[in-house]
Amino acid sequence: MQQLRVGVVGATGYTGEELVRILCRHPKTQISYISGKEDRTVRIQEIFPYLQGTLDLECRSFRFEDAVDSADLFFLSLPHTVSMQIAPRLLAAGKKVIDISADYRLKDTAVYEKYYKTPHGDTLNLASAVYGLPEINRERVRAARLVANPGCYPTGAILALYPALREGLIEEEDIIIDAKSGVTGAGRKADKSLNFSEVNESFKAYKLFEHQHVPEIDQELGAALGRPMSVTFVPHLLPLNRGILSTLYARLKKNVTTDELIGVYERHYRGEPFVKVRSGGILPELRHVAGTNFCDIGIRVHAGKKLAVFVAAIDNLVKGAAGQAVQNMNILSGFDEREGLWV
Amino acid sequence: MQQLRVGVVGATGYTGEELVRILCRHPKTQISYISGKEDRTVRIQEIFPYLQGTLDLECRSFRFEDAVDSADLFFLSLPHTVSMQIAPRLLAAGKKVIDISADYRLKDTAVYEKYYKTPHGDTLNLASAVYGLPEINRERVRAARLVANPGCYPTGAILALYPALREGLIEEEDIIIDAKSGVTGAGRKADKSLNFSEVNESFKAYKLFEHQHVPEIDQELGAALGRPMSVTFVPHLLPLNRGILSTLYARLKKNVTTDELIGVYERHYRGEPFVKVRSGGILPELRHVAGTNFCDIGIRVHAGKKLAVFVAAIDNLVKGAAGQAVQNMNILSGFDEREGLWV
Amino acid sequence: MQQLRVGVVGATGYTGEELVRILCRHPKTQISYISGKEDRTVRIQEIFPYLQGTLDLECRSFRFEDAVDSADLFFLSLPHTVSMQIAPRLLAAGKKVIDISADYRLKDTAVYEKYYKTPHGDTLNLASAVYGLPEINRERVRAARLVANPGCYPTGAILALYPALREGLIEEEDIIIDAKSGVTGAGRKADKSLNFSEVNESFKAYKLFEHQHVPEIDQELGAALGRPMSVTFVPHLLPLNRGILSTLYARLKKNVTTDELIGVYERHYRGEPFVKVRSGGILPELRHVAGTNFCDIGIRVHAGKKLAVFVAAIDNLVKGAAGQAVQNMNILSGFDEREGLWV
Amino acid sequence: MQQLRVGVVGATGYTGEELVRILCRHPKTQISYISGKEDRTVRIQEIFPYLQGTLDLECRSFRFEDAVDSADLFFLSLPHTVSMQIAPRLLAAGKKVIDISADYRLKDTAVYEKYYKTPHGDTLNLASAVYGLPEINRERVRAARLVANPGCYPTGAILALYPALREGLIEEEDIIIDAKSGVTGAGRKADKSLNFSEVNESFKAYKLFEHQHVPEIDQELGAALGRPMSVTFVPHLLPLNRGILSTLYARLKKNVTTDELIGVYERHYRGEPFVKVRSGGILPELRHVAGTNFCDIGIRVHAGKKLAVFVAAIDNLVKGAAGQAVQNMNILSGFDEREGLWV
Repeated sequence: MQQLRVGVVGATGYTGEELVRILCRHPKTQISYISGKEDRTVRIQEIFPYLQGTLDLECRSFRFEDAVDSADLFFLSLPHTVSMQIAPRLLAAGKKVIDISADYRLKDTAVYEKYYKTPHGDTLNLASAVYGLPEINRERVRAARLVANPGCYPTGAILALYPALREGLIEEEDIIIDAKSGVTGAGRKADKSLNFSEVNESFKAYKLFEHQHVPEIDQELGAALGRPMSVTFVPHLLPLNRGILSTLYARLKKNVTTDELIGVYERHYRGEPFVKVRSGGILPELRHVAGTNFCDIGIRVHAGKKLAVFVAAIDNLVKGAAGQAVQNMNILSGFDEREGLWV
Repeated sequence: MQQLRVGVVGATGYTGEELVRILCRHPKTQISYISGKEDRTVRIQEIFPYLQGTLDLECRSFRFEDAVDSADLFFLSLPHTVSMQIAPRLLAAGKKVIDISADYRLKDTAVYEKYYKTPHGDTLNLASAVYGLPEINRERVRAARLVANPGCYPTGAILALYPALREGLIEEEDIIIDAKSGVTGAGRKADKSLNFSEVNESFKAYKLFEHQHVPEIDQELGAALGRPMSVTFVPHLLPLNRGILSTLYARLKKNVTTDELIGVYERHYRGEPFVKVRSGGILPELRHVAGTNFCDIGIRVHAGKKLAVFVAAIDNLVKGAAGQAVQNMNILSGFDEREGLWV
Repeated sequence: MQQLRVGVVGATGYTGEELVRILCRHPKTQISYISGKEDRTVRIQEIFPYLQGTLDLECRSFRFEDAVDSADLFFLSLPHTVSMQIAPRLLAAGKKVIDISADYRLKDTAVYEKYYKTPHGDTLNLASAVYGLPEINRERVRAARLVANPGCYPTGAILALYPALREGLIEEEDIIIDAKSGVTGAGRKADKSLNFSEVNESFKAYKLFEHQHVPEIDQELGAALGRPMSVTFVPHLLPLNRGILSTLYARLKKNVTTDELIGVYERHYRGEPFVKVRSGGILPELRHVAGTNFCDIGIRVHAGKKLAVFVAAIDNLVKGAAGQAVQNMNILSGFDEREGLWV
Repeated sequence: MQQLRVGVVGATGYTGEELVRILCRHPKTQISYISGKEDRTVRIQEIFPYLQGTLDLECRSFRFEDAVDSADLFFLSLPHTVSMQIAPRLLAAGKKVIDISADYRLKDTAVYEKYYKTPHGDTLNLASAVYGLPEINRERVRAARLVANPGCYPTGAILALYPALREGLIEEEDIIIDAKSGVTGAGRKADKSLNFSEVNESFKAYKLFEHQHVPEIDQELGAALGRPMSVTFVPHLLPLNRGILSTLYARLKKNVTTDELIGVYERHYRGEPFVKVRSGGILPELRHVAGTNFCDIGIRVHAGKKLAVFVAAIDNLVKGAAGQAVQNMNILSGFDEREGLWV
């Protein structure tokens, strides 16, 4: 069978590395182009030695001329603002693009500018970009030429809230998302505040109310529901490599029990390959989703307080980034959605 | 000067060890008795080798006859139910007791029985026990013969909520406490779920709504305010040794800004040696309180949502246990409250 | 194509879990039987939730009658002494067995008894068991009915030393192996000394000279060389989940440079799919082998001291256990040796 | 009593922070000057919030004019090359200096230049600087005006080797030091290779044979013994904050048992306040020395191989840096050597 030729632009960060790892296992794709932030041209297995015998490609700085003919679909695993410089040219050349940066997620360019401190440079493609959360937008992803792969925090948060909101079971106001992320979420970079000894044996909240993922959650929940949303979002930094666990608090509009609410979620996500609703008194733990494309969801109702608590766990580099990108590729390429993503 | 002779009953757990460490530095006390869960009599410096040259005492199983005449004040660092067997005899012999277990915290024995699954065996002393949170009960601690040292989670939660509740600034309903604790909080024990590889690189919520510290928080906030309280409390397990950071969410009753609310807290805690209200945009981090008796409190108001978020950080073994116990000892002994607890 | 039906006896420990994970990806096998230390029969995806949608099997206590007809090849991921009770019956029934315990590794039953504190119960099969280190014994594995899968420490140590010993480049005397292992090497069990807070932020040596892997290293290096060996082995416990990095010191018999010695290793391991000799000044790091079946080897010569230093890194659960077991299965089943083990 | 006024130059790194913490507890000193790498003048308790109520001082960039009259003794906790610009001026003004950098440790300026890649700029004071390892040089420290505080690796290594070398029990050739250090040893800085996710769940050797602490160990052991030494030193990076554990291998010249060798060390270190020789089958662990000024030493003899193995554990920030600096200050100021350093 003819394999899909894919390019990974930005292969040397944590997400790019995970993407390469997943794609190497994918039976229907062939990585045919790789670029990264290297001073000199190196073979990718010099950077990631475990690729020896699996993938033998040069990794150099991105140049459109090198890239354009070498692949049919490109993953952009780049800092925001860089993606929107590259994506238009690849799209214009007829390539499909899955952008893992934030550049094509926010439909309102004023909001983009507010949170990312820079004007948006590609409003044309922004308009047609599809927010690649398959559990909500699967059909639109299928037809997309440009996928805006969701942020790591929004992925778990939206999956945890959507069914209850859609069924009118929880208040749209007063939703609180207390999120905790591992350190790879901050990227592979030199930064004193990410030095091992600053993070290890510590824990903190950061960017209260101001995180750039707030408008993304609001936009996508709002779009799915057809009315504006505004969540409270407080992220924290966990001393571990991989994983986001969010605890979400919402007021119940109706009297439902824990089991009934779990039932609603099980029905909603029946058939979804990557969402697992935990029942039987079990709650998600990060160790159970690490290295997988699953989003595990736990639910508890406090009847007396008419409060629902949701716990959502994902691997930020897989379902929160590279895995979901491959899931989107599978969908728009007509592959089995789990291809390359089985445990 | 004559030093106070103190005994540490249960010196070999994490709290007991921390207590010994702090008391060794305390200029006004002398550790004159130590017991622990040892099969045989050992010298304490065999268990904690860094005590060599600092403390040279036998550590054996507790026997009342050995203990009673050897010290004037006893710290009980014991599992619940064990303290209430020992405390009455020490009190009857005229000794002062600071109990770090849960046995004398809950005034309602039915609640105790519900959460600790055993009847209370010492209702007599329970009635006169003083809940040892000095920032609220300092005067009562001063006169106490039996101090119930607060639980680790309640310490931070109560200190973070009390000023705003007292001033009528936040709703009493709908308070959410999303708490995250290091692993020493679970004690020094063999337990598969506490095995390094189960906890490391993982994170989870546990005991949603059901944790035994819920009634303790409700009782003490209720007592301080003069009316019943009922908080929502969700604890999580952090992959680190020491520290609890809680993020607390409360609805504002009045329009106050972040700075105004910080101002209220600064005035409330002015002069408190161990509560630090963070201002200037800074939020607490566990690394800043580790090894100290401080409770650091950060505050943010979301005006649009009329929501206040509090972040409280303590070292669970110090302000959450052994340090607070020494603080209580200092108060009831007439010492400087910071003696032995300076950084 | 007909898939090989495989059984995993002891699927709920760290090695068993890793084995199931790898086998689920393997295109030529089908897991058809699973047992574990469960009180009741549970579905495996209740224990390992990420298997949902991938593997749906009952996991119960091992019973020969349940197991024997359900698979053609069995992996025994069991404590020592348990394997040698089960293996003989499976072998007698014509099944192939890959034993990941220590029961069939040591040929001398007196040595087994000395290190494992119990007599050997199956000397018959012990005689024909093949030590499954493919890089040395590939041809014998191909014909084996019973494979003794190597211990985690011996795997890296033997691979690091063998080429230099075989070429007569280093002294056989005076070899020192300073080994450092992650905590999963100790198994999934309740043990106070493995409690998170005892291991985290700590490091120690243990079982100096007395570790049960010493005779295994001596036996296999001795067998490969045709003369007795006796290494010095000092293991240490690292505060991380996965990986063993060993630093090995040996006296040079001849003047060779670092590059020449690297050249010897590159030639020796040319074509080996899972051994990577690092050159260009690079040394192995555990993060580069985690989750892979690779053994990375680094080499440095100190000319003035006539000393060679080798650094060998593996993932103790993959090349040190489950991955190597699958590699052995691939060999004796005639599959591509890397099947299921690609990155 | 009049307190000694001390200045801490470079208070914001890990060692400087630890130094401030220790000095705050010291009954005979008063921190009267602090400088750090700050862009603007800040109060030290803004940087280290736990100092609130303990120390209230401005922290600004070092200026000689600000510093010189404000203290009688200065600790320089600075990068190498910076110390040797500042120390001469402080010494010329009659101040005592304890330099925690490497600038005054190596007596041979050619060796300094080789390892630190810069010429030495203060050979005058270098000649009279005393290497501040009290267990070897106590009397010289007592009279010193300039103390070169030892490096972290050399401290443990020298203390572990010296008694056996001095007694002629081990060969001077062929000594191997396999050392493992926590991450604070690398300083508080932005460096991608020290990013949490690069270090956590990993382990590696680095700078084989080439570490700048090699000549320091050789020089000081050589000076103590009166003949040249040359050790093999291989450092590794541990995923933890604090502590160095070194495993040292030496050939025995005589037949001694483990107990006899332990006896030699116990006699040698009798009366030493900060060296603890572990007996009774116990070996050092980092958790037992963390936060203390102790060096714990364990010893095992392999009679058959005529090999002695030593295990030495210290806290790299305390006995390996700030604690030892205070120990040196105590000695040269005539204080009790343990003042401020009790557990």
